[in-house]
Amino acid sequence: MTVENFSTKSRLADTGEGITGDELQLAARNHGIPLEALRYDVTPPGLHYVLVHYDIPAANAATWQLEISGCVEQPLSFGLTALRAMGRETVRVTLECAGNGRAALNPRPISQPWLAEAVGTAEWTGVPLPDLLRAAGVREDAIDVVFTGADHGFERGVEQDYQRGLTVREALDSGAIVAWEMNGHPLPPQHGYPLRLVVPGWYGMASVKWLRSIEVIDHEFTGYQNAVAYRFRQEPHEPGVAVTRIEPRALLIPPGHPDFMSRHRFVAAGPVVLSGRAWSGWAPIERVEVSVDAGVSWSDAKLDAPSNDLSWRLFTYDWDARPGEHVLTVRAYDESGHVQPIEAPWNRGGFANNSAQRITVLVT
Amino acid sequence: MTVENFSTKSRLADTGEGITGDELQLAARNHGIPLEALRYDVTPPGLHYVLVHYDIPAANAATWQLEISGCVEQPLSFGLTALRAMGRETVRVTLECAGNGRAALNPRPISQPWLAEAVGTAEWTGVPLPDLLRAAGVREDAIDVVFTGADHGFERGVEQDYQRGLTVREALDSGAIVAWEMNGHPLPPQHGYPLRLVVPGWYGMASVKWLRSIEVIDHEFTGYQNAVAYRFRQEPHEPGVAVTRIEPRALLIPPGHPDFMSRHRFVAAGPVVLSGRAWSGWAPIERVEVSVDAGVSWSDAKLDAPSNDLSWRLFTYDWDARPGEHVLTVRAYDESGHVQPIEAPWNRGGFANNSAQRITVLVT
Repeated sequence: MTVENFSTKSRLADTGEGITGDELQLAARNHGIPLEALRYDVTPPGLHYVLVHYDIPAANAATWQLEISGCVEQPLSFGLTALRAMGRETVRVTLECAGNGRAALNPRPISQPWLAEAVGTAEWTGVPLPDLLRAAGVREDAIDVVFTGADHGFERGVEQDYQRGLTVREALDSGAIVAWEMNGHPLPPQHGYPLRLVVPGWYGMASVKWLRSIEVIDHEFTGYQNAVAYRFRQEPHEPGVAVTRIEPRALLIPPGHPDFMSRHRFVAAGPVVLSGRAWSGWAPIERVEVSVDAGVSWSDAKLDAPSNDLSWRLFTYDWDARPGEHVLTVRAYDESGHVQPIEAPWNRGGFANNSAQRITVLVT
Repeated sequence: MTVENFSTKSRLADTGEGITGDELQLAARNHGIPLEALRYDVTPPGLHYVLVHYDIPAANAATWQLEISGCVEQPLSFGLTALRAMGRETVRVTLECAGNGRAALNPRPISQPWLAEAVGTAEWTGVPLPDLLRAAGVREDAIDVVFTGADHGFERGVEQDYQRGLTVREALDSGAIVAWEMNGHPLPPQHGYPLRLVVPGWYGMASVKWLRSIEVIDHEFTGYQNAVAYRFRQEPHEPGVAVTRIEPRALLIPPGHPDFMSRHRFVAAGPVVLSGRAWSGWAPIERVEVSVDAGVSWSDAKLDAPSNDLSWRLFTYDWDARPGEHVLTVRAYDESGHVQPIEAPWNRGGFANNSAQRITVLVT
């Protein structure tokens, strides 16, 4: 018995293969947002999606240290108290898992089996990352910035601390913060207690939790999570294209009442206000379309006031629900021209599958 | 298209049938405790298991009313402020879903597909249920007490508010409280905000969330969740036996570091302190056994100080980990003679499957 038997390569599900025991273990640990919780502007912890690669580390805020090192004029080390003295900013951020939608792909990449619910919006409070980098003094030979978390494990045979890199420009220009509060309270353990990175607009893999080190390096970062895991690929041995910002997506709050097992919806005939949230990591949302006939015809939803950030935007749509079965579907457009597709293209990692949500309702 | 097509009967998985899309939808909404979070004496919200039958209701604490009615001398209605004036008690309670372990059964009942992680321990603060019943004055003809939540939906074709009944004796003697705080904070939405019942020792289905009514009735309650859903049965048309108190179970915190996909564990050779939690709804835990050879031989774990309640008990075991593959397993015994089996008997609803946990580790 070797490491390779215990930590195997990724694979695609066979035709008709149900969700596996491995996928179920991940689905039981990690969780999405129950779609009715899209009603909250800011998602309470416990409803915000969570994806933990390895184990949630045991952490002690009193002794936690964040090291800043590498290609800097002055390496620095901060405890939580010293870090709080560096500045304080609160940003509202919609985070989504890069694997959201994976389990709906065909063939299905075997990994965390998200359907469409791996999203949440929180207010993160911390110090802007550029302030920390400027305090340390980024040297001219700097290329990338590497963020290391305290979670440790194996993936496809590779032992690692969870690590992600950004270019120096991304680290300075993306609005990233090093956060110690979520929604005005200390971070919950599963969201990175006591300290995490939050990179607005990027899929969640960039927002390293349990952050203990920031290293500036003079070459491109080729760590596992940047160079191997989070890549758009058609074939396993391609270099692939990096997964970065969040593709546009709209999700409806399912109307009416659910069946426990199927989650099918029952709606009373008459006027129904459909509502939901839409977001994109590329630019603010400028338009959401709703279809109540499975995509045959589309109408514009009403949008609430535009926001200055990339957090989700509320939309509503007045529906006159007539008796019978209906399929509701929605799609989002952002200001930079990114459009949510009805069917997103397949990729082998199952990333960024923003195919339009479909909700089946019975109007009675 | 009728209600019956949208809300179908329960069924068993076919031989070799993977987890279905319906099961996955439930697993993505609801979640268990990541097993490493067994390290916390009290489980933070977001790590404590959650099972929501229908949707989390939108709730306003300022206007919330709890009605007490039926076979009482004086029907009462309480807003949150009035309820707080009735008393305040904090109880530490281990809650477990009755369906915990269901997905490991063969054949597998199709429903929320828990493996072994549907558990959590919280400190619930509220007013003792007997104080409320005594304030209303339970009449001599009273038989059962019916608790109704604000969540509404369909199950197997039956439209319903979530409702559960207890006998008057159970309502008075089980230590139940009507709670508005979890771990010192207002209840999170998914745990019943603003008000819920908590019945210590009972599987979670008894602890009705989003509690809005307590009705005392002069006959046996035959509502869906008591008479149809939560019953031990071998065949679908049997009346079955009511699911009530929590069967004993022990869970280890998986040692070492995990593989992302398989959750297999890697452990460094040498002394390892294994630890975990054990609980029973029948009586305090008096013994936990650990096996590091897949159940061939067993040793007693060390238990921490006994508690006065039915909340979980910490155990530890010193293991000298030798290189190679090992299967770790544990079992719990309570003071009333309830013993956790290696393999629990099958039942059609998939309830109370407390078969012993097995963790595969590679010592390197």
